[in-house]
Amino acid sequence: MQTDLSAALDIGGTKIAGALVDAQGRLVVRAARPTPADQDGATVMRAVAEVVRELAAAPEWARVAAVGIGSAGPVDAGAGTVSPVNIPGWRGFPLVAGVRALVGELPVTLVGDGVAMTAAEHWQGAARGHDNALCMVVSTGVGGGLVLDGRLHPGPSGNAGHIGHISVDLDGDPCPCGARGCVERIASGPNIARRALANGWRPGPDGDASAAAVAAAARAGDPVALRSFERAGQALAAGIAATATLVEIDIAVIGGGVAGAGDVLFDPLRTALRDYATLSFVSGLTVVPAQMGTDAGVVGAAAAAAQRSRLDAFTPAP
Amino acid sequence: MQTDLSAALDIGGTKIAGALVDAQGRLVVRAARPTPADQDGATVMRAVAEVVRELAAAPEWARVAAVGIGSAGPVDAGAGTVSPVNIPGWRGFPLVAGVRALVGELPVTLVGDGVAMTAAEHWQGAARGHDNALCMVVSTGVGGGLVLDGRLHPGPSGNAGHIGHISVDLDGDPCPCGARGCVERIASGPNIARRALANGWRPGPDGDASAAAVAAAARAGDPVALRSFERAGQALAAGIAATATLVEIDIAVIGGGVAGAGDVLFDPLRTALRDYATLSFVSGLTVVPAQMGTDAGVVGAAAAAAQRSRLDAFTPAP
Repeated sequence: MQTDLSAALDIGGTKIAGALVDAQGRLVVRAARPTPADQDGATVMRAVAEVVRELAAAPEWARVAAVGIGSAGPVDAGAGTVSPVNIPGWRGFPLVAGVRALVGELPVTLVGDGVAMTAAEHWQGAARGHDNALCMVVSTGVGGGLVLDGRLHPGPSGNAGHIGHISVDLDGDPCPCGARGCVERIASGPNIARRALANGWRPGPDGDASAAAVAAAARAGDPVALRSFERAGQALAAGIAATATLVEIDIAVIGGGVAGAGDVLFDPLRTALRDYATLSFVSGLTVVPAQMGTDAGVVGAAAAAAQRSRLDAFTPAP
Repeated sequence: MQTDLSAALDIGGTKIAGALVDAQGRLVVRAARPTPADQDGATVMRAVAEVVRELAAAPEWARVAAVGIGSAGPVDAGAGTVSPVNIPGWRGFPLVAGVRALVGELPVTLVGDGVAMTAAEHWQGAARGHDNALCMVVSTGVGGGLVLDGRLHPGPSGNAGHIGHISVDLDGDPCPCGARGCVERIASGPNIARRALANGWRPGPDGDASAAAVAAAARAGDPVALRSFERAGQALAAGIAATATLVEIDIAVIGGGVAGAGDVLFDPLRTALRDYATLSFVSGLTVVPAQMGTDAGVVGAAAAAAQRSRLDAFTPAP
């Protein structure tokens, strides 16, 4: 029997998605359950087990060589545990042991969801062909992951690329993480909306005060809305430039809901990037939108599993 | 003939040092010339050639397997060129081609001086045994380098780990690099002295207004001097925490003249690190002084050459 598939799980606060993924990144079998995020840890794990059992019931399961898990973080790849901020029932939860009990002898790889998204963009998306890349999700939070020297860099604990919680404003506003002036504290969707409201922007008759509504106002020329996105772009640019200066990346890929704002975000971000990415070896850095859609999590978890398992068939093309 | 040595060059604005380095990191042969930093590029290159010829005249030269160059940056390892800020005659200067013309068939590896220092600390110094480390020099400037997954990470151009020019204060003071609020702009020796003077500190009768004099005043309890080192420590902490959050390091090693201030720098730095390194996977991060002395540059250039040449004898111990 040819073992040419990876089983992949993408665990978020809303949905637990699973798939069997082939060497071309295609989803051969799918399964999903809502995340019972407000329930106790065992209940959440039962939802995971239902997804795994549904995948394992497919005849293609016999072709699975490795299992990859991308989870909302923080994760601890060494201990095999997860503590997703948005799943309170899981704190230091032994997710890898729980999945291993369901899949027998298959190797199981755990990475953070930002790392998984990065693996997907590198394998199939906007970072394809780039040996040194930062991929980010800008949404309710700001997450990310790194490709260095042509390979995913999850770091020892599976959390590397956590750009949302680097400080770009050391005297700035307190961040829930405990630090100040973090990229997420300035550039996440809720913070874009909060800043616009604080500076006098008001939602329309539908009462929508989301970052998407601020983006619509910015596109219509509202100066307060524009300034809030400019500030987000500036913080993202400082964080991206810092990453490039530290590890030498040549591309930054940005996905997530806030990236859907388009030019309202990307234009000021690219302008600010020229201000912060000043050294010769980072001056060629480009910023592009992500290409992978909602399947990025499972595709990336599959790629991460395959890289750890050294299946050449899954190695992203150079 | 056993080829068990690396030839190493350490090129700075003051001195060009060379050595033949054995597999234990010992300097078997040494040579050095002052850097004619205010002369034209060809004159600087002649001084390099004199160092290389002196090394090549030693009988041990026959045992050399690879040549490593650590140079003041920025460097461009891909193009083999260097543009040291403090050697104005070299802008895009083809240093690797010049050295290659002197050493025949030997492989030549070029890295920035921060990367070379890091290789030395990882091989023989304070980062030994650490698979993920940031090493820094805090002096007239602030430089650094990274060890990731047990190996030196020079980056494609040989400049990775350039922590001095990441912005930790996106609205901060303009930095000569063109950005704002860079770590170097806050934490370098000249900036520690400048800030102390601006806030009312005055040098003693000898007129010494260096960072070392500010450190002496701080040790004697001068509050303005103490505050200037505290601010430097805060900026270094924010930069170190950002690095750990991005790539997962567990140790930061700090050398250079400003690190010689000792507790006056390290105490506030460690306190601030707890404020900025907040996520679970970076909370174990430690900061220690460098151990390698003035030979770090040549020892590290030798280690970088050996790593690139895949000489197992030079691979830093796990």
